[in-house]
Amino acid sequence: MRIVVIGASGTIGKAVVTALAAGNEVVPVGNSSGDFRVDLGSKPSIEALFKSLGRVDAVVSAAGEARFGPLDALSDDDYAVSLGNKLMGQVNLVRVGHPFVADGGSFTLTSGVLAQRPMPGSAAISMVNAGLEGFARAAALELPRRIRVNVVSPPWISETMRAMGMDPSGGMPAAHAARAYVAAVGGTGTGEVIDGAAFA
Amino acid sequence: MRIVVIGASGTIGKAVVTALAAGNEVVPVGNSSGDFRVDLGSKPSIEALFKSLGRVDAVVSAAGEARFGPLDALSDDDYAVSLGNKLMGQVNLVRVGHPFVADGGSFTLTSGVLAQRPMPGSAAISMVNAGLEGFARAAALELPRRIRVNVVSPPWISETMRAMGMDPSGGMPAAHAARAYVAAVGGTGTGEVIDGAAFA
Repeated sequence: MRIVVIGASGTIGKAVVTALAAGNEVVPVGNSSGDFRVDLGSKPSIEALFKSLGRVDAVVSAAGEARFGPLDALSDDDYAVSLGNKLMGQVNLVRVGHPFVADGGSFTLTSGVLAQRPMPGSAAISMVNAGLEGFARAAALELPRRIRVNVVSPPWISETMRAMGMDPSGGMPAAHAARAYVAAVGGTGTGEVIDGAAFA
Repeated sequence: MRIVVIGASGTIGKAVVTALAAGNEVVPVGNSSGDFRVDLGSKPSIEALFKSLGRVDAVVSAAGEARFGPLDALSDDDYAVSLGNKLMGQVNLVRVGHPFVADGGSFTLTSGVLAQRPMPGSAAISMVNAGLEGFARAAALELPRRIRVNVVSPPWISETMRAMGMDPSGGMPAAHAARAYVAAVGGTGTGEVIDGAAFA
C-alpha cells in the first residue's frame, strides 16, 4: 500500500512510519521538514499536499496542535488554534483528501485519552479530541467507494511524558501505540474509536 | 433558584421553562425576542447578557446552531457556524458566565443523540455535540466554588420531527426531555452527559 503519514516527525508519527515500513510505500509528511509538508491549520495547504501526492491507499494522521492550560487561562486564540488545527485540520484531511484515496482505502486520525478521561487543563484538548471522534463516527457513514475512517485514541506516551518531565511509568511506548494505527490501516472497521491502550 | 434559560423560545427551551417554573425565578433568554437576548455566536453578546443579568443560580442552554448536510456538501461556513455557535457559544457561556453563577450553581448545556449515534448528514453536528461533551467533562474538573457543568443529550424530539415532516413516533415529547434538564439543575452530578432518552 502507498500510505501517507502526516506528522511523521512526531513521537507517534515516527513510530507509525517504522511500524508500517515493511511491505508498504510510506510517504512521510512533516510540518516543517521533508519532501512533503503540510500546515494542518490551512485548508489550501492540505489541498496542495494531496495534489502533489496523487493517489494513495491510506492516510494516517498523527498530527495536530491543541492547547493545554487552566480553564480560566485558555484564551480565545487557544480555542481557535485547537479547533482550527487538531480538529478541523484532521477533518479537512478527510474532506479534501478522500477523492485522492483509492477504493477501499482509509483514513486513520488521532484524538487522545483526554477525550474521555480529562484532567485539569484539558478543556480545549478534551473538546477537540471528542469532537474528532464524533466527526469520524458520522463521516464513516458517507465516505464513498468503501473508504474507511477511524480514530486512534492514544494513551499518554512514555517518551512524551519523559520529555515533559513527568514520570513515564504510567505511559505506553510510542512503538506500542503505533500498533493501533497498523491495526486500523490493515483492518476492515470504520467509524471506530480505537483505544490505543489496548495495544500495550 | 434564579435560573436563566437560553433558547427559551425553542422547542426544548419552552418545555424547560415550563418544567422549571414552579418554585424558581426563570429568566427566559431568546435569540431575537424577549427582554433578554443573546447571540450565542458572539462572545461580546454573551458578556453583555451576563452583565445585564447579574447573579444567577443556574444557567440552562437549549440553544445553538449547527448545520446538517451531506458530507460533500457541508461548506467551510457550515463547519464554522456549527463550531462558532452550538459548540463555542455554549463553551463561552461557561467561560464568560461562571463568575456570575452563585456558589454551588450549575450550567446545563445541550448536545444531542447524534454525538454518539450519527446519521448521514450529521458530520458537523456529531462533531460539535461530541466536542461539547468532551469540554464539559474537562471543565467540570476546574470550575470554582462547587459550580457544576453537565450536558443533556436529547433524543429526537417528536415536535421537531413533526415540524420536519418526519414520523414522530420514534421521538420523545419535549416535555419529557425537559425532565433531564430539571434533573441536571436539581442534582449534584458534574461533568456528566445525561441521556435525555432515559427520561421517557
